[in-house]
Amino acid sequence: MKNIRVGVVGATGYTGEELVRLLAWHPNATLAYVSGKEDRQVRIQEIFPYLRNRIDLECKAFSADEARDKCDLVFLSLPHTVSMRFAPFFLKAGKKVIDVSADYRLKDAAVFEKFYKTAHKDVVNLGQAVYGLPELNREKIRTAKLVANPGCYPTGAILGVFPCVKEGLVHLEGIGIDAKSGVTGAGRKAEKSLNFSEVNESFKAYRPFEHQHVPEMDQELSRVAKQNVSVIFVPHLLPLNRGILSTIYLPLKKAVSEEDLLALYRKTYENEPFVNVYAKGALPELKNVARTNFCDIGLRVLPEKKLALVVTAIDNLGKGAAGQAVQNMNLMCGFEETAGF
Amino acid sequence: MKNIRVGVVGATGYTGEELVRLLAWHPNATLAYVSGKEDRQVRIQEIFPYLRNRIDLECKAFSADEARDKCDLVFLSLPHTVSMRFAPFFLKAGKKVIDVSADYRLKDAAVFEKFYKTAHKDVVNLGQAVYGLPELNREKIRTAKLVANPGCYPTGAILGVFPCVKEGLVHLEGIGIDAKSGVTGAGRKAEKSLNFSEVNESFKAYRPFEHQHVPEMDQELSRVAKQNVSVIFVPHLLPLNRGILSTIYLPLKKAVSEEDLLALYRKTYENEPFVNVYAKGALPELKNVARTNFCDIGLRVLPEKKLALVVTAIDNLGKGAAGQAVQNMNLMCGFEETAGF
Amino acid sequence: MKNIRVGVVGATGYTGEELVRLLAWHPNATLAYVSGKEDRQVRIQEIFPYLRNRIDLECKAFSADEARDKCDLVFLSLPHTVSMRFAPFFLKAGKKVIDVSADYRLKDAAVFEKFYKTAHKDVVNLGQAVYGLPELNREKIRTAKLVANPGCYPTGAILGVFPCVKEGLVHLEGIGIDAKSGVTGAGRKAEKSLNFSEVNESFKAYRPFEHQHVPEMDQELSRVAKQNVSVIFVPHLLPLNRGILSTIYLPLKKAVSEEDLLALYRKTYENEPFVNVYAKGALPELKNVARTNFCDIGLRVLPEKKLALVVTAIDNLGKGAAGQAVQNMNLMCGFEETAGF
Amino acid sequence: MKNIRVGVVGATGYTGEELVRLLAWHPNATLAYVSGKEDRQVRIQEIFPYLRNRIDLECKAFSADEARDKCDLVFLSLPHTVSMRFAPFFLKAGKKVIDVSADYRLKDAAVFEKFYKTAHKDVVNLGQAVYGLPELNREKIRTAKLVANPGCYPTGAILGVFPCVKEGLVHLEGIGIDAKSGVTGAGRKAEKSLNFSEVNESFKAYRPFEHQHVPEMDQELSRVAKQNVSVIFVPHLLPLNRGILSTIYLPLKKAVSEEDLLALYRKTYENEPFVNVYAKGALPELKNVARTNFCDIGLRVLPEKKLALVVTAIDNLGKGAAGQAVQNMNLMCGFEETAGF
Repeated sequence: MKNIRVGVVGATGYTGEELVRLLAWHPNATLAYVSGKEDRQVRIQEIFPYLRNRIDLECKAFSADEARDKCDLVFLSLPHTVSMRFAPFFLKAGKKVIDVSADYRLKDAAVFEKFYKTAHKDVVNLGQAVYGLPELNREKIRTAKLVANPGCYPTGAILGVFPCVKEGLVHLEGIGIDAKSGVTGAGRKAEKSLNFSEVNESFKAYRPFEHQHVPEMDQELSRVAKQNVSVIFVPHLLPLNRGILSTIYLPLKKAVSEEDLLALYRKTYENEPFVNVYAKGALPELKNVARTNFCDIGLRVLPEKKLALVVTAIDNLGKGAAGQAVQNMNLMCGFEETAGF
Repeated sequence: MKNIRVGVVGATGYTGEELVRLLAWHPNATLAYVSGKEDRQVRIQEIFPYLRNRIDLECKAFSADEARDKCDLVFLSLPHTVSMRFAPFFLKAGKKVIDVSADYRLKDAAVFEKFYKTAHKDVVNLGQAVYGLPELNREKIRTAKLVANPGCYPTGAILGVFPCVKEGLVHLEGIGIDAKSGVTGAGRKAEKSLNFSEVNESFKAYRPFEHQHVPEMDQELSRVAKQNVSVIFVPHLLPLNRGILSTIYLPLKKAVSEEDLLALYRKTYENEPFVNVYAKGALPELKNVARTNFCDIGLRVLPEKKLALVVTAIDNLGKGAAGQAVQNMNLMCGFEETAGF
Repeated sequence: MKNIRVGVVGATGYTGEELVRLLAWHPNATLAYVSGKEDRQVRIQEIFPYLRNRIDLECKAFSADEARDKCDLVFLSLPHTVSMRFAPFFLKAGKKVIDVSADYRLKDAAVFEKFYKTAHKDVVNLGQAVYGLPELNREKIRTAKLVANPGCYPTGAILGVFPCVKEGLVHLEGIGIDAKSGVTGAGRKAEKSLNFSEVNESFKAYRPFEHQHVPEMDQELSRVAKQNVSVIFVPHLLPLNRGILSTIYLPLKKAVSEEDLLALYRKTYENEPFVNVYAKGALPELKNVARTNFCDIGLRVLPEKKLALVVTAIDNLGKGAAGQAVQNMNLMCGFEETAGF
Repeated sequence: MKNIRVGVVGATGYTGEELVRLLAWHPNATLAYVSGKEDRQVRIQEIFPYLRNRIDLECKAFSADEARDKCDLVFLSLPHTVSMRFAPFFLKAGKKVIDVSADYRLKDAAVFEKFYKTAHKDVVNLGQAVYGLPELNREKIRTAKLVANPGCYPTGAILGVFPCVKEGLVHLEGIGIDAKSGVTGAGRKAEKSLNFSEVNESFKAYRPFEHQHVPEMDQELSRVAKQNVSVIFVPHLLPLNRGILSTIYLPLKKAVSEEDLLALYRKTYENEPFVNVYAKGALPELKNVARTNFCDIGLRVLPEKKLALVVTAIDNLGKGAAGQAVQNMNLMCGFEETAGF
């Protein structure tokens, strides 16, 4: 039985496409509206031929009125700073909104302005937005009207750090996250630096310490720690389509055995349908999480340095974006949390 | 001993970069001028750090006067239809010109206009330009003032077909070329369809029958055959950086054994420094020619169909562009043909 | 409602893994048995972590008795020449069998022996096996006890050629298939030539004219043509994981317009749930079919040569192997043909 | 003028191939002997067709006597624990030896045994072997008879850490190296985990803290620091052929500005022909060093954490193996240090 009508605004980007793919197979949602950048009106199954026989829907130039009329819940898969121009409209109309952009993730509008170079235009709704990481905020998400879907890097990083911070095991000033992302994370863009031949057979670090996802990690981990956390974050660009592997270095306050740390992670996530803590000795690989909503976690301890190494793997379009957005929809709408996966 | 001063106009594209790389190590040429699209003036070794200690040269915004003053020979590595605006200037000043664009390849200005959608602006020099495929036109290249460096696809295709056409072995109307090219062939462009995630893990045919390189193949093979040849040409885009593999289907007029055909190819190319005819049974792979000026050739015969299969492999930036341009320079300037390789 | 219990013998190869993935989400099948090459017994969701929460099943060393006891239908995803040692056992026990290997595809045991270098060991069942290409043999598949799941190359090739042969449009002796396959087609093997660094950034033709899939294409197309067909087939190895693009050259007996040919293909496949004929001008790309059971088809006509170009794209593990096997299961068991996709 | 005759024992692995390629173009060395694993005797230019016209040499089954007779200097590009069986033979015969394996890198035979699981068989020569990192040991290399060519990871790591350790700027117990290597680093092996489809579109950490290259880094950095250093080292496998990017985290003892740190690195390496310190703000990419002998270095400082981030990039087959070996040969033989590059 289909319960709700949903729309995807911005359906032709990588995250939008993944949302459409997930929703087209979802047992409780009917995809009722999609809009995209295409200049001519086409059917969405012509843009993405694998949708044939599954869905038959025109991909339109965006009309907020039409989206409102056709949908109970709207996914905004728009560029940063654009979502906040439309979210208020849908909220006012009583629609649920899941914003996949960064616009409602940072509680402090000044921090938003610092990292996104524009003043926040919807401070009212910013206050009520819930940061949509179910493993931290499940109950709030259930009743939220507006969910700010987390960034891809923060999802993989926070899930790897969270148990240690919650238990007070880690020196908060020394949390190091060396993250590596596939190229879809940069969006479906015409950009010379994203040309195949520039990325293929290469690898680089970029924007160390100052990536716009840093304040998201700091905000959420500070909430958990109940004190200021500022992580050391260095992202890299991997020559592959999908996935983020985060290699996380955690300086421990006291000696903890690998067994005990694994037990803590296992306990923390034991009821989580989408977090997969590996057996002792095993570490995740990106191919294991591609096209899933899982966050896979493996860890090691280096006792002589009192250092924990936590490695997390997600699909940046799955748990890092569209998958998590659908998980949030499931929570907001009272569906099975795993419905559609 | 350095003999000539050369310049590369358009040094920051893929072909331009490869020209700079080859010329920076060339024993008889001094790279005296490079210009590129960069909006600020930088040294070429900062754009391409591997040139450090080998060359120290500013990459300038293009000035025809400066290029003329500093160079004896100029490589024009410019977009199609741009080269013909500048070639006359350098020729008039008594400079040798190797045009890496398509502007001087097609002898018939009407055919040029049909495929490049613009009238030819330099018909005078078009008449004297030599098609720079040394294996067919070596002697003319030696004395040429203006060499039209062949397209990447035509180079791999013509070298595979040439011996059979010259010997009159093949039904000319049935020559089929199924070619597959790496992505650098499309240039260093900001284009959504060339975004890493669009090309990676995918493969497609594009512009079948009507690619702008078709008239080049037809023109050169018709000259060899002394009658009209029109090939069946289907290009594809490979998810890799460098290389073109051409799988060529040749319907034979009469039964020819694999041994005899191999002997013909071997004989045809026995003195060619950059054509590598494989042993019986062996077929080329792109990795064997990457970053070389070689065209590797293997072949098979299917006797019951009177069909020859010829497979050629080149680096589209090597023998398919910059490498061949340097080979042409060597011929035009009286250097060892293999100098710099 | 789950209707049947199924098993996958050989679940840890690429095709086996894909079968497990499809069956774990299938609405009418319960995966009751999997066996693999792993030397120790492990749970299948530990080998493939994305199966977590979806399935909980031990991956065993193969026992025919156990597989028989636990399953109504068995997928044999075994190396060629191994399947025919076990299929008789399951058939005798009244089980349905879908053989993903080549063992029951070739009706003529002598042809099998020629291409697979071993005598056929189960000629009795060979006679009753149905070649599992639903688009050609749907009704026979519905009642089959033993389905020989087609090879990956033949699937993409036959679906591209079939309409023209059925209509008698093509010179049968001139059918040319230039096919390009991803690396999973070669299996999950330890082999130097399949090492990442050997395949990556390279491309080659291999086994032209003599690949073991040629007799499959010839057999099925001859049945359609009601006369002997022998195709010209040249396979290539693409540096990507999944997909086969077949570029098919069809010499037409008479002039046919592109519109008319498209209409024929559209008509032929109009009721096919997994064949996707593209709009005029459009050609398929591998990324459109990856992880689907679709065969996408686009075509062009070159009137001056009376030549049709048909391009087909499949996922070699989807429609080319596991997907098609599940489609066959759906037909054999009376499920919706599209169930599980 | 050619001065010495050299041999490559183990010429068909990736490092061996790169050695042959470099030596075939070297102005002062004549490649007089190559041996490889091929079971039949073939000419090296048939195995690597791009060597055609450059070299004509049989690739033999290894004979120590023949190698000794034909060479003044021998490169041992053999598996670890095999080199030490042959190095004494060549040294005794008065030949110079550059061992590309790990056998002579670790001064302490007990450490060797711990990490390579076999007792050292040539402790005598181990004592006189020089660790062949020219930037640290240039003068000793000039007079060495036996050079232990450094491992690929240690080369990139040590060059990134060295200036800070030498100047006493860094807390030695907190040096963290998050390294990512291309697949050729694992050798030309038939191994399931190195199959293209296992590595492509994936990424993982492996052997954290315990990789066999760790004691090499510790040994050399301890020598520089004049006290015990033990680094935190986590290697990863990149889906590309060539290159190692090391992201290095250095906790500083006191505040140092980015400018001052860059000045230190620039000063340290100002006379180094193969170390390229980038401009402020710039970070290296693997494509910049592929097929070169360069180590490119960029850095950033995070003042609020007193943390330096140093990123180094090398080609694991270039500066990380064969390139450095040729650089060592140049030093040992009194050639220009940059000869052949």
